[in-house]
Amino acid sequence: MEGSQSQSQNNTSAGKGKLYIIGIGPGSVPQMTIAARDVLMNSDYIVGNGTYLDQITELIDKQEIIRSAMGKEVDRAVKAVQLAKDKIVSMISGGDANIYGMAGLVLEVAEHEGLDVDIEVLPGVTAITAAASVLGAPIVNDFAVISLSDLLTPWEVIEKRLHAAASADFVISLYNPKSRQRKSNFSQAIDIIKKYKNGSVPVGLVKNALRTADQDYVVTTLDEVMNYNDWVDMSTTILIANNESRIWKSNNRERIITPRGYQRKYDY
Amino acid sequence: MEGSQSQSQNNTSAGKGKLYIIGIGPGSVPQMTIAARDVLMNSDYIVGNGTYLDQITELIDKQEIIRSAMGKEVDRAVKAVQLAKDKIVSMISGGDANIYGMAGLVLEVAEHEGLDVDIEVLPGVTAITAAASVLGAPIVNDFAVISLSDLLTPWEVIEKRLHAAASADFVISLYNPKSRQRKSNFSQAIDIIKKYKNGSVPVGLVKNALRTADQDYVVTTLDEVMNYNDWVDMSTTILIANNESRIWKSNNRERIITPRGYQRKYDY
Ligand SMILES: C[S@@+](CC[C@H](N)C(=O)[O-])C[C@H]1O[C@@H](n2cnc3c(N)ncnc32)[C@H](O)[C@@H]1O
Ligand SMILES: C[S@@+](CC[C@H](N)C(=O)[O-])C[C@H]1O[C@@H](n2cnc3c(N)ncnc32)[C@H](O)[C@@H]1O
Repeated sequence: MEGSQSQSQNNTSAGKGKLYIIGIGPGSVPQMTIAARDVLMNSDYIVGNGTYLDQITELIDKQEIIRSAMGKEVDRAVKAVQLAKDKIVSMISGGDANIYGMAGLVLEVAEHEGLDVDIEVLPGVTAITAAASVLGAPIVNDFAVISLSDLLTPWEVIEKRLHAAASADFVISLYNPKSRQRKSNFSQAIDIIKKYKNGSVPVGLVKNALRTADQDYVVTTLDEVMNYNDWVDMSTTILIANNESRIWKSNNRERIITPRGYQRKYDY
Repeated sequence: MEGSQSQSQNNTSAGKGKLYIIGIGPGSVPQMTIAARDVLMNSDYIVGNGTYLDQITELIDKQEIIRSAMGKEVDRAVKAVQLAKDKIVSMISGGDANIYGMAGLVLEVAEHEGLDVDIEVLPGVTAITAAASVLGAPIVNDFAVISLSDLLTPWEVIEKRLHAAASADFVISLYNPKSRQRKSNFSQAIDIIKKYKNGSVPVGLVKNALRTADQDYVVTTLDEVMNYNDWVDMSTTILIANNESRIWKSNNRERIITPRGYQRKYDY
């Protein structure tokens, strides 16, 4: 049952392809891992949707690009797996490829097609940590990540998870807070969380975290967060801190600090 | 309440220092972000403990190194904040700096000392995503991260979070599963999770994920995981999948796939 994974990115024998599933990070090349960049630059094919391809244009040179529309994820995955029989193929995903990303679907497709393809997943910086960096130190303790998209998960399951996470005072991060169809999921989620967490708990909203141009953020509280309802969109990650967290103002900037008991231990 | 953070790494005016808190990723330079590497190479000082400094030796050239022992975190943070008044100082943290990392303590110290220092946090790939990459696609859906270290969080709080996360069928990742003092926290945590999740739920254990030399992993189930109790150590991250996850064997390798309802939506 034990094994170890090859670390090398060039361990494919001549004529044999490989499929990389790559988390490209929050959306600008400097926030990508060095390994992800190197593999992308040496791929025969790069497969991804337009949004993610636009975030890596500076790395595109001779690779063939397969652009795919939203909703075509399965077709794209089948194509990538087939090409990887004898080519180096990189399938890109925003943030980390495991977190609401392409890794699951691609492995499902590979399993279903029964193809003996060499697949390696490369991790990336995921939205919660990108957003947390902008906000200062809002996590530091145990946390839960919940997607508010009910396209793929029934809303009752999402509600159950919101209750569970809030009742045990996890720091909570909400991904996919809004889409054209789902206007009220965000406010319903906040209502549930408010049943358990104090109204004064700090909340950070970060839009386009660490992307080159459009980053913006808000530091507020659970009581006030619905004032920013219209500001929240599909490019926003929400971070609800825990009952011990506080807002720190300095340098004309507000940040969130979640302490982790160092004061208790070190009497600081 | 709104603002936007500078993206530039060289926005300090002459004579003015800056403090970076840097997540260096799972433990090898290729898995670090490009931004993290660039800032480290251009720092006057790099502050960190021996383990993390050893993971970045190839980036050390003219920077002054401040090595600090475990348990000296507060002293180290005070020193870093003071130096950053007029130097470029990088404080390094394993994985991501927000996830059981140094970001919280450093901001607490800066607040406490009342120093007007420019601080920027740079995110890194955190252990759960590094471990997930090795295991295939075990996350893909909502997840909770819980540290089993009860040095800084009371055990009752940890237990409550384990109950909450398992009862709502989050994918659960356990950090800090073992230390010299705490031999039984891991088995107690598994006992709690077993009350809610099926015994057949896939469990992945990953040691030294994506580190150059010593990576190893196990794919097993909740029923069988305690057979590996002795194998689990401080460098291990545990990933307990959800009730829909399955183990996929191919290429002489076992991986975990957590589906996300694409089959439902796409009838695949
Ligand atoms: C389909 S999920 C993909 C998440 C991605 N795989 C990750 O690990 O970050 C898309 C959601 O991630 C969040 N997100 C991704 N990148 C972001 C960024 N740079 N800033 C803020 N939120 C982001 C938003 O909540 C968005 O709705
Ligand atoms: C004090 S926490 C620091 C976590 C770190 N800030 C992060 O974001 O990954 C240390 C724990 O992280 C996990 N960990 C960190 N790096 C790891 C790696 N490369 N492989 C497996 N587990 C790792 C282990 O559970 C370890 O006990």
